[in-house]
Amino acid sequence: MADTNKQSSEKKEYHKKATGNALTTVKNHSKENDLKLYGSCFCPFVQRVWISLEVKQIPYQYIEVDPYKKPDLLLQINPRGLVPALRHGDWGCYESTVLMEYLEDLSEGQSLLPPQPKTRAHSRLWSDHINRHIIPSFYRFLQEQDQQKQVTLADELKTEIGKIVDVADPTGPFFLGAGISFVDIQMAPWVVRLNRVLKPYRGWPEPEPDSRWAKWVKAIEENEHVRATTSTDELYLDSYERYAENRPNTSQVANSVNSGRGLP
Amino acid sequence: MADTNKQSSEKKEYHKKATGNALTTVKNHSKENDLKLYGSCFCPFVQRVWISLEVKQIPYQYIEVDPYKKPDLLLQINPRGLVPALRHGDWGCYESTVLMEYLEDLSEGQSLLPPQPKTRAHSRLWSDHINRHIIPSFYRFLQEQDQQKQVTLADELKTEIGKIVDVADPTGPFFLGAGISFVDIQMAPWVVRLNRVLKPYRGWPEPEPDSRWAKWVKAIEENEHVRATTSTDELYLDSYERYAENRPNTSQVANSVNSGRGLP
Repeated sequence: MADTNKQSSEKKEYHKKATGNALTTVKNHSKENDLKLYGSCFCPFVQRVWISLEVKQIPYQYIEVDPYKKPDLLLQINPRGLVPALRHGDWGCYESTVLMEYLEDLSEGQSLLPPQPKTRAHSRLWSDHINRHIIPSFYRFLQEQDQQKQVTLADELKTEIGKIVDVADPTGPFFLGAGISFVDIQMAPWVVRLNRVLKPYRGWPEPEPDSRWAKWVKAIEENEHVRATTSTDELYLDSYERYAENRPNTSQVANSVNSGRGLP
Repeated sequence: MADTNKQSSEKKEYHKKATGNALTTVKNHSKENDLKLYGSCFCPFVQRVWISLEVKQIPYQYIEVDPYKKPDLLLQINPRGLVPALRHGDWGCYESTVLMEYLEDLSEGQSLLPPQPKTRAHSRLWSDHINRHIIPSFYRFLQEQDQQKQVTLADELKTEIGKIVDVADPTGPFFLGAGISFVDIQMAPWVVRLNRVLKPYRGWPEPEPDSRWAKWVKAIEENEHVRATTSTDELYLDSYERYAENRPNTSQVANSVNSGRGLP
């Protein structure tokens, strides 16, 4: 990791630039395009939309956003400057799940949702579980400073993950079977961060060998589009130190968890 | 209200049966059908799916669920027995927004989402705003016992409602224009409850005459499908007394708000 990417103080800071495979992908998508993804390299919600674009092979321009210096075009989409945000021509939108549905509605490239209404509903139901149960549980565990409470919160996260593993296609390796789809992409950025953030900071365990969960994690980690949007381990280790120490910061996610409100 | 619908104690209890127009609709949909909506008459999340079925005129069977005596077929869909739940043949699903998308995917009757990807994304973005900002704000305000905090929470709810009114079609009267669609149905049960619950318990004000908000409220209140799924005022007044007094109860919504967790 380049020193220019962090402040000179001893506290690690957020990165302003992707690294590793993700940096290569940023460079390959730096040219002006009608479809622009505004993202920050450490943001898991951004990675969802980014993976979707890569899976679908829809041409796009990636624009890295420094959370402290939000570009005007982003603020025009949403005054709070939340990423991910998508600009398509003169129209803009935000919220990762909404943007994934939007890309799906464009009907370009590989579908993320199957055509059957029941399987679509199953996918949306379990995406909702990720958003409302797994992700808040992930942040509560990461931000908790009390060791006894950490034990409880680790169990809670395992329980929430266990529920979605129980309803996944038994063979897999992905949620609906052989190929990556909506639920896998919703989940992928947190699988990446379980290994690179919760493991070093909170001792999150490796999956049980040969378990369905192990198979899913491996399939997600090895997927070319997940890899193409993942930076080097240090970027995540640095970016989440402030969460793991629960220091005051500008993260709307961290502040929401601390205040007992839903995620922003 | 019939006395059989409440406990003999002085505290009002939840109703086990719809009243008024909603009761007529229940009776008209009591016959066995392959598509079954499990609902509780006071539940706003149920009303969303119910309105959608009515708008689309898809044949269905309505099954009233007593939260203390959940039927086995409902528990097979979800062990927690959450309503709304839908059973379609041998398949079941839950979560109001997921179920609305499912009904939409059946491509029967009137569409709730327009065909244009951008307008669909706009609808989903503001449905998400209702779910993550307006509804939690509604319950925080209703459950707050401290009068000074109630003032702050009333302002917060007005602000969140103001944001969605600002992005609604300027002419209306509905969110996207002349006809009722996805966002209106997501919002409708809370519009019904602003008038019937927040007004009596918290002094929620009438909309400013001739405002865009007044026009929207009127269009929702007068819509035939909203009316067909709405009980008499007393049912709501009784059902929400326990929220307004923030008494311990079995509501997963109330407990989540109190514990600072997201809605269940």
